[in-house]
Parts: sequence; C-alpha cells; structure tokens
Amino acid sequence: MSKRFIDLRSDTVTQPTEAMREAMFKAMVGDDVYGDDPTINELEKYAAELVGMEAALFVPSGTFGNQLALFTHCRRGEEVILGEDCHIVAHEVGAAAVIAGVQLRALPTDGGRMNLDKITATIRTEDIHFPETSLICVENAYSNGAVVDLDYMREISKIAKEANLKVHLDGARLFNAASFLKVEAREITKYCDSVMFCLSKGLCAPVGSMLAGSKEFIDKARKKRKLMGGGLRQAGFLAAAGLIALKDMTKRLSEDHENAVYLADELDKIDGVKVDRDTLDINMVFFTMDKVEYISDKIVKYFNDSNIKINGQEGGKLRFVTHYWVSKKDIDYTINTLKNFLNK
Amino acid sequence: MSKRFIDLRSDTVTQPTEAMREAMFKAMVGDDVYGDDPTINELEKYAAELVGMEAALFVPSGTFGNQLALFTHCRRGEEVILGEDCHIVAHEVGAAAVIAGVQLRALPTDGGRMNLDKITATIRTEDIHFPETSLICVENAYSNGAVVDLDYMREISKIAKEANLKVHLDGARLFNAASFLKVEAREITKYCDSVMFCLSKGLCAPVGSMLAGSKEFIDKARKKRKLMGGGLRQAGFLAAAGLIALKDMTKRLSEDHENAVYLADELDKIDGVKVDRDTLDINMVFFTMDKVEYISDKIVKYFNDSNIKINGQEGGKLRFVTHYWVSKKDIDYTINTLKNFLNK
Amino acid sequence: MSKRFIDLRSDTVTQPTEAMREAMFKAMVGDDVYGDDPTINELEKYAAELVGMEAALFVPSGTFGNQLALFTHCRRGEEVILGEDCHIVAHEVGAAAVIAGVQLRALPTDGGRMNLDKITATIRTEDIHFPETSLICVENAYSNGAVVDLDYMREISKIAKEANLKVHLDGARLFNAASFLKVEAREITKYCDSVMFCLSKGLCAPVGSMLAGSKEFIDKARKKRKLMGGGLRQAGFLAAAGLIALKDMTKRLSEDHENAVYLADELDKIDGVKVDRDTLDINMVFFTMDKVEYISDKIVKYFNDSNIKINGQEGGKLRFVTHYWVSKKDIDYTINTLKNFLNK
Amino acid sequence: MSKRFIDLRSDTVTQPTEAMREAMFKAMVGDDVYGDDPTINELEKYAAELVGMEAALFVPSGTFGNQLALFTHCRRGEEVILGEDCHIVAHEVGAAAVIAGVQLRALPTDGGRMNLDKITATIRTEDIHFPETSLICVENAYSNGAVVDLDYMREISKIAKEANLKVHLDGARLFNAASFLKVEAREITKYCDSVMFCLSKGLCAPVGSMLAGSKEFIDKARKKRKLMGGGLRQAGFLAAAGLIALKDMTKRLSEDHENAVYLADELDKIDGVKVDRDTLDINMVFFTMDKVEYISDKIVKYFNDSNIKINGQEGGKLRFVTHYWVSKKDIDYTINTLKNFLNK
Repeated sequence: MSKRFIDLRSDTVTQPTEAMREAMFKAMVGDDVYGDDPTINELEKYAAELVGMEAALFVPSGTFGNQLALFTHCRRGEEVILGEDCHIVAHEVGAAAVIAGVQLRALPTDGGRMNLDKITATIRTEDIHFPETSLICVENAYSNGAVVDLDYMREISKIAKEANLKVHLDGARLFNAASFLKVEAREITKYCDSVMFCLSKGLCAPVGSMLAGSKEFIDKARKKRKLMGGGLRQAGFLAAAGLIALKDMTKRLSEDHENAVYLADELDKIDGVKVDRDTLDINMVFFTMDKVEYISDKIVKYFNDSNIKINGQEGGKLRFVTHYWVSKKDIDYTINTLKNFLNK
Repeated sequence: MSKRFIDLRSDTVTQPTEAMREAMFKAMVGDDVYGDDPTINELEKYAAELVGMEAALFVPSGTFGNQLALFTHCRRGEEVILGEDCHIVAHEVGAAAVIAGVQLRALPTDGGRMNLDKITATIRTEDIHFPETSLICVENAYSNGAVVDLDYMREISKIAKEANLKVHLDGARLFNAASFLKVEAREITKYCDSVMFCLSKGLCAPVGSMLAGSKEFIDKARKKRKLMGGGLRQAGFLAAAGLIALKDMTKRLSEDHENAVYLADELDKIDGVKVDRDTLDINMVFFTMDKVEYISDKIVKYFNDSNIKINGQEGGKLRFVTHYWVSKKDIDYTINTLKNFLNK
Repeated sequence: MSKRFIDLRSDTVTQPTEAMREAMFKAMVGDDVYGDDPTINELEKYAAELVGMEAALFVPSGTFGNQLALFTHCRRGEEVILGEDCHIVAHEVGAAAVIAGVQLRALPTDGGRMNLDKITATIRTEDIHFPETSLICVENAYSNGAVVDLDYMREISKIAKEANLKVHLDGARLFNAASFLKVEAREITKYCDSVMFCLSKGLCAPVGSMLAGSKEFIDKARKKRKLMGGGLRQAGFLAAAGLIALKDMTKRLSEDHENAVYLADELDKIDGVKVDRDTLDINMVFFTMDKVEYISDKIVKYFNDSNIKINGQEGGKLRFVTHYWVSKKDIDYTINTLKNFLNK
Repeated sequence: MSKRFIDLRSDTVTQPTEAMREAMFKAMVGDDVYGDDPTINELEKYAAELVGMEAALFVPSGTFGNQLALFTHCRRGEEVILGEDCHIVAHEVGAAAVIAGVQLRALPTDGGRMNLDKITATIRTEDIHFPETSLICVENAYSNGAVVDLDYMREISKIAKEANLKVHLDGARLFNAASFLKVEAREITKYCDSVMFCLSKGLCAPVGSMLAGSKEFIDKARKKRKLMGGGLRQAGFLAAAGLIALKDMTKRLSEDHENAVYLADELDKIDGVKVDRDTLDINMVFFTMDKVEYISDKIVKYFNDSNIKINGQEGGKLRFVTHYWVSKKDIDYTINTLKNFLNK
C-alpha cells in the first residue's frame, strides 16, 4: 500500500484527514451502551441540530441506518414505497425482507424522482387483501448522481401526510445534495420524519452514519440498534472523526462537485466518450464509451497499472467519483491516462 | 339467502354442484396428517398427473399455495421476479415478506407479460451488495383477464434455466387459460418447476387448491404446510368435490368464456360503455363507463335491488365475472338492468 | 380401508358422525371471504358465545389458530412464556419463529403447570438488553393428558394483568378439560384474552378449529388469517359439521374419559404395565411397560395385524387414546390383544 | 468526566491503553468492503490463527457476532439448543427470533453447563411436527462468571457430531476462560465450528469482536454481515487496537482474575457479605448481602459519591468486575468504602 493511487472507485474509499487522526488520538470516550461516551453524545446532539431533528443516533453504516429506519417505522408485512434503483432496493442485500420484514413497492424513477401520481396510486386502501402502506423512502442525492429539488421533497411530504405515512430520507450523500441546492441540509430534511446520513464517503470519516428523527423515534431505534448488534462501546473515537466530518468537511463538498464537472467536461472532449449530464449533480461522473461492455476489464487493468483505481462498467456505464483525495491535477492525469488507453 | 341472486362479483362465489354435494356425502376419509385419507390421496395423484408433475399437495387456498411455493423454493432474503400487478404482489396481504421473507422485484406488465429483457436485467449477478435471485413467478391466466401464450412460457423457462432459477406458476385459473389456448394444462405447466391451481373459482369446489411439483419439492412443502397450519385431518370431503372439479368441471370452462364474450359484445353496444377487449381471454369482462368512479356505488345498489351482485369499480373499471351459475339468460337480464339504470 | 380398525393413535383420526355428513350435505354456503357464508357466520357466533368471548373465527387447524394468536397478540421479537412441552413448542414445526417471529421462553411444567414464581421471574423488566414480554400461553387440557384447575388459570390471569400481558389458551381439547372439571368451557376461558379450540379431535368434525377473543382481536386476526392463506371460500360445509361438534358432541366427552379410566384400570392389572395416573384427566392413557423402547415396533405391528392401530413409544411411554369410535367392547378386545402379545 | 472513577460495573467500560491510541493514530486503513484495509486483513488473519480456525471476520459487537453466527449456521425455523441464562437468550433483545428466525430451546444450566442427557433428549428426530435442530451454542466463560472445562466442551462436540449439528461458542470472554484453564484459546475452540470473541471488555479495545470458523462459513457470514449493516469502511483504526488486544492484552488476564479473587477474599471477611465462590473463575465477583434488594440503590449512590461506579443488584446479587483499570489499591479503597457504608 505504499504506492500512492488515485482512487476513483467511490468516495467510500476516502482516508480520514490528518485532523481526524489527531482528534481520534485525543478523543474522550466511554461506554456508549451506558450512555457514557461524551464524544458520541456530542456528535448525536450536533447531528440532530444540523438536520433540524429532535434526536440522532450513531450507527455503524449507511445500510445499518436505513434498515434500522425501516425496522423502527414499520411493522412487519407493511409496504414501503421507494424508487426501483435506490440503494435500499438495489444494494442492501435484500435486508428489508429479513430485518424489517416489509414488502418493497419499487417504482420507476426519472432523475431520482418517482412519479407522484404513481405514488398516490400505489398507496393501499383498506381491503382484506391489502397490506398497509406505512412509509415512503426518498434518496437525495440519488445513487445515480442526481439531486432532487425541494419542490419534489415538499410534494412527497404532502402526499405522505394526507395518507398518514412517514417519510424516510436516505441521505447517504445529504450534504452533497445540500451543496448542489445551495441550501442548509435541514431545508431538505424538514420534509422528512427521519433521515440517515453518512459521516464517511465524501466527508472522510472512517466509519459511521447517523440516523435522526423525533425523540420517540430515536428512543425506539436505540433499542432496535442493540438488537441488530449495533450497540458499540467506546465509539467516541469514531465520533471524534465524525464531528470534524460534519463541522468542517461538509463545507468543502462544492469543490468535489466542481472537480466532477471539470472531469466531465474533459471527458466529453474525448471522441467516443459521452457523459451523462443529467446526473452530474454531485461528485459522480457517469459516462458511456464505445464498446464499454467489452473493454471495461482492460481499462480497469490499464488504469491500475497507471496507479488509478476504477470500477468496471455497470449497466453499460463507467462511473468516476471525485473526493477530498482527488485533486484537479489527478483529474488531468486521469484524462491523459484514458487518452493513452484509447490511442494505444 | 333464500332469494336467488345472479352473482357477478367473482367466480370465487360459486356454489358446489349437486354432484359435488353427493360425492362429499359419501366420501371416504381419514387423517391426512397420517397420510390416511384415501380421497385426498386420490386427488393428489390425479392432480399431479393432470399437470404433468411428480407430486401434488392439497392446500386450503390459492394464497396458501402461492406462499407455500415461495417459502419452499426460496431461502429468506432472496429475490423473486414477478409482475407488479400479479396476485402475489397485489392481493396476498404482503405475506411474501412475512412467511417466505423474500424481496419481491415487481416488473411492469403488458397483457400479463413482463418484458423479457427487463427480467434478464433484473436477475442479480454475484456482488456483496446483492441478494440472490432464486425464482420467477408467472401468472396464467393473469388476474386482469389475459392469458399469456406458450411462447412466453417457453421464453421464461429458458431465461430461468440459464440463470439457474426456478419458475413458479400461479395458475389459480390455469384451466381457464388452457381452455383459451386450446391445450392441455400440462402444455402450460411443463415450463414451470411448480404450479398452484384452484379447485374452487370456476371449477366450483367449495374449498381448496393444489400445489404441484417434483417429489422432492412436494416433500419439503408438505412439512412447511404443517408449519403454516395447513395440515388438515379428514380433508377428503373437500377432495371429493375437488376430484369432480378436476375431472368434469375443467371441461366446461369454454362455456364461461363464450358467455363472457357474449356479455362483452352486449355491453359494447351500450352507449358510453367500453369493454377492454385485450383482457377478454377468460371468464372476466372488464369495462369502463362514463363517470364510473362517481356512480359505481349507485350501480352496486341498483343492481343489488335487482338481485344482481356486483363489485364497485377498481382503478376506474368495473368487472363482471361469468361462471357455472350464470346462464345466458342471466346475462340478458344483466344487460337490461344496466340499460334501465342508465336510462332512469 | 374396508376392514374396520380400532384406532387408538389419536382422537384426530375420528371420522365424522352420520349426523355431520347429513348436515354437510344440506349446508347453506357462501363465499366467506365476502362474509357471505351463513353457516360459518352461525358457527362463529355460536362458538364465541360458548366461550364467553365477543367474537370468533374459523381457522383450518389448531396449529393455524395458535400461530395466528401469537401473530395477532405479539409484535416481532417479543417474548412468549409457555410450558416447555406444550404443543406450540413441541409440535408446531418451529412456526413461532417464522410467522409471529417471537422468542419462546419455555418453562418446565409439572402436570401441565408452570411454576408461578418462575413465570414472574421470567417476565422482562425495562432494559436495553431485554425484549418485551407480551404473552403467556396456557394449554388446557395439556398435551400430556392432564387438566389444570381453575385456581391455576386464575393465578395466571392475575400475573398477566399485573404485568400488562395477554393470556392465550391452547384449548385444542378445551371441552375435555371442561368435562373433567365439571364446568362450562367459559369458566376456563374467562381467565384468557384468546382461546383456540378444535372442532375435530374428540368432537369428530372433519376439519377446523376456532379462535375466539375480543372483537378488536378477531378483526385483526381475520386479516392476518388471509395473509396466512386461511381465508376459505364455501367453508360452510365444514362449519355445518362444526356446529354439531359444538352443540352435541361436547356433551359426550365424559364417556371418552370413563372409557379411558376403564382402559387404565385394566392395563394396570397386567403384570409389567404401569399407567401414569397423574395424567389421566381426559381421553388419553399414558403407560410404561418393561423394555417398551425395544419392543414398541413389535407391538405396533402385532396390534396392526389384530386390527388395532397404535403409535410407537415416545419418551419411553405408550399412549392409547379413546374417542367416539372406541367402545367399551373395543377396549376389552385391546386388553386381550395386549395380553396375547405379552404371553406369546 | 475529568474526575477519576473506579468503574466496577463491567469490563465493557474499559478505556483503550495508550499503546492502542498510538496504534490507532498511525493505522494504515482502506475500504474494507473492497477488502482494501490492511490492518483489518492482518487482524482477521491473526485472529483466525489464534483460535485455530481457517478464517475470521471483524464485527461491530459481540451481539452482532453471535447473531451473525446463528444467521449463517441455521435456516429459518430451525432450533438452537443453549443455556437458559446465556447471553443470546438473556441479553440480546430477542434478536434470534428476528434476524436468524430460529427457535431457541433453552435448557437449565448449572455452573454454565447444560445437562448432557437433556441436550440429547432435546435434539429433534424426524417427524412432520418437528423443526430441525441445527446448532448447539455454548458460552465460555459463562455470563455468570463460571468457566466450563475441556471435558464438557469435548462432550458437547461429540453429541453434536453424532447428531450432525454445528457448535457455536459465545466466547465474549474466551481468553479469560483460557487463562483460568491455563490452556491456549484454541484448545477450547477446537471443539467448535465457530466462535465469537470480543476485542473489547477485558482486552480493552474500544469497539469490535471477531467471528471465526471455516473459510466457507466466513465467506457466507461476510455477505450476511453486509446485509445486517456491519460492512464498515476504514475499520482499520479499530483493528489496530484489536491487534494489541489480541497480542498483548490476552496475556495479562490472569492478573484480573487474581484481583477478583483478592476482592472476593476481602469481601468474604465482611460480616453479612457472602461471595458466590462457584462462579469466581474470571474477573467477576458475585456476592449477596443482607437485604441487598432494599439497599442496593443506596449503595450505588454512596459508592458513586465515593468515586466508584457499580451496578445495582440483579436477582438478589451484586457483581463487581475487575479489569485493566482496576488496581489492587483500588480494591482496597472499594473494600473500605463498603465497610464505611455498612457502618455508617
């Protein structure tokens, strides 16, 4: 691991900053199951305020936070309406059928948006053949790189209130979305009953996510977190990095987006490369290339030999992700590497 | 209940025939949990042969049979691909998330058909974020009244085999489909690993459905049937009616379809009534009428006062269902009643 | 099946009476999912009154009724306190972990009784490590042949009320217990929030059990019955036999008990046979014999050759069960057969 | 938190050592979901070797590891045999009924031992009414402070092999047990198919436990860990402390035991205090005192005012736990404090 790599696979690969390492070194910790960890307590208080909720809870991962939200909001056998390509459906190993025991009603999405009429039509009425609908899940920023706007959030909230449903926000990249919309995070979360957001990813903390909501919701979730094996002991080390993530790193996400746009512009100049401009709202650049299905293994290898880590194509697309450890110079080097690959 | 009603709500309302009552009266029965019920044993053998499977099992209902199939084919947390408006998704109270604990991947349908490329794209590859796909569910005849043809069944089977998946057929109205396609039921079921079909509905038996498959599958299902509370004792009474359903009543389903077409033709002659001709393959007639949302309660009451039972509109459509107890004369009376309602 | 057997394996093997067959032949039926079956409606009303509850529901089996009770009373992950050898723990295929998703806290029993202090000590207090206790299950008559008295029922009820728990009674053989205690069934059930009792077994109906409780409880259970696949159509045939079971057959259970005591007395006269007199409260006779583990297969075969069906030993004991189809003369023949076996 | 407390509540409260903080500061980390974290990889390799297993997996907590083991070993609805007061039954919030969906068959224990004949009798035979038994769970050291010896482990293993069951060891305090038995940990774990052991508790790491087993078992568990939300990113920080825990801290646990014995001896000298000598095998001292139920709140307060944290009584007993941060001098101070309390 001594050789330095440019890592464009995801922002989950981000190393913590030097400031985070120092904060961890000095962290005051205690047994959080006893409520004794001062740094966790500070993080949970700070996180709740940041998203305008009454309370927040540290959880080991984004998947943990989302599944805990489903498990806390819903009774078993109830239905959850959400986008068919969102993280909960696509990338959480089918956990919703195991832990919460809920039935997912996944709707098509366009730019991260479900059709609002389709949502309304999917909400169950009272009938002996029907389960109850209890929750709508929204993702913002969406896994595909799009950010949905406040109007959409407001409409979802309205539909949910009328049907007496709750709204959970998968905000794994909530602050990237807020940065794009140029609003405070709480302007997005105020349309939701609960929100999960990650301290890792673009914010660089090594481990952990937050689940926030009403005090009653978080009290319930705290016990269910224990059931799921997420009651940690001296977690304050992780919280120390998490506090820096929330206080400092949230402010620099626009830089990652600028770098993504710069990368996109340079990619688009290359013959045979086509960036998906509709999903360029955060730190992700999705693009297609001629015959990408057939050459993606070769590119991955070629880039790796050039000290750049990338993932292979998925659904005919490549994805490059910018973050704190990817500079503009790294992007120039990446573009050159791609050009060399195509011209060799 | 002494007044005679024409009941067009569903074919689930069918009374047993006189021959069924007599067979029940004389039925030889025993304790089926001990395997001692001769009539159940005869029914299970007959049913298996009818659909070309090694073995079959009596279950209390169609929902029971479908859920038992999911529970037997799949391990918890696995994924099942099926149509978004099929019975398992739409009308089984969310049971798949409770009993089998599987994640449903519901795809849009057109005439009861899912897009084949979409199915292939939905099957999971190997990745730590992905659950395993283990099953495709097909419904034939489809709940919306359409029958899917043998080519489609064959294609589904081919996709499943290539991806090492199983295929379960919800054949609640399997014999209506076979009648429409003018083939033996086993020509449809040969593309499937398991099939559930109902003895009630158009076949008039009072209670019960069959689940059929390989011997190994049915052996497993038999134990899981006990777990689900479906191990019955002297069930031979129900089997006695079921044998008549399978031996005799399957042969007369074309008559119900002819009556449905006749009813459809007459409905289409009425101003402002429009039959959905694309879903007229079995004993169901779906149609729209001007302002049906607003007047459906009134129609239901008016028809009831005229000794005809119908359901209110669902999704802007009315549905009239023909069956053994609805004669051509009853249809004429129904048409007149509708005309009177519209002209009053 | 033309040869007549004396069947001592269980009372689940009971054939329906001639009166039941006739009632089934003439039964008025309808679609019970629509609430249209008059005989089911009559049965549910009659059954509720019989046990002093607001409402009752027909279910396909005793296991179905017990599991539906757990599923309706409890939320997933909660705890249920019950006897370690009761039917729910021992003979329902682990269903409680699958359908209701509850944790069973099984306590030792003595004559069907759990120690009351042990129950109290098992009820959870508030702690982040503890699930909630929500239900106590009692069985009466107990599977081992013992009947527990009203004082015990009262104590259980008192403990439950103080801890805000519900009480469910597995009354598969409720009327045998009532007969032994010389009280009306409702004198037993008045200490419970719900009760399941069977129409089959000693009461001779071919299929079905009842779940009774408050109106609110039964309303919930009705929907969950549909989820579990227990929503039947023209179930009135089964209800017709069930009504005779409840109205007439409940009155003759003392006769089965008298026969059991007679059988026990005769068995005890045989050298090397020892009846368990502590569990002789209903229609079951448990007894040990020298080397029963090693000879039980031989006895089963010998008896079968003599036209008597019995089960092999379980836990070192044999069990002979009396019922409507076992006369005093049959018992004399059984005793002689055993003597012949032992002397051959 | 600036005031120094002697914390006798549990060894879960242990702060990491200075060496751990430094190791965390310098840790090499990567994205463990991609398998890129060198420190996690080193820890998993080291841990596997330490317990003589093919592979090991880092998990967020002991509860997580135990539940993941159940989830990986068992299919839903199967049965697990274990002690009625073990951690999985008593302190994991009912998770086994939610995540693995298994039925616990909890047996009485004596000194952490279940009766071996009772285990054998509890294993299910083949019968349509019975779930399958698939796992025996052993705990060593036991939660109540007792260590079970190698003969017992061997017997359990033999019973399991004969019945084709797996054995899981809850070794939250495995190294305390090994220290007491004066053997290497792998002498205990060689009788098991999987083992969970904690890096925290007496070993002082801040967060995390290990699950070890065969390569095939751990491969499966790795995916199910992701499903349960335990796939972490730069977890190497926690692994860095964990490596010190396993390499260095395991060697000093005998010291905690000596301190516990010293504490026990001093307690026993006090009038009205009685130590439970049968459960003094590790770093826990259980003792009773006159009227402890009534005075425990007062003691907790009095000790807290004297800068000693203790838990209140549970089941009529107090428990004092020794660990790295409790010196012999601290014990003397504790004894004096108790004497003062009793004499005041």
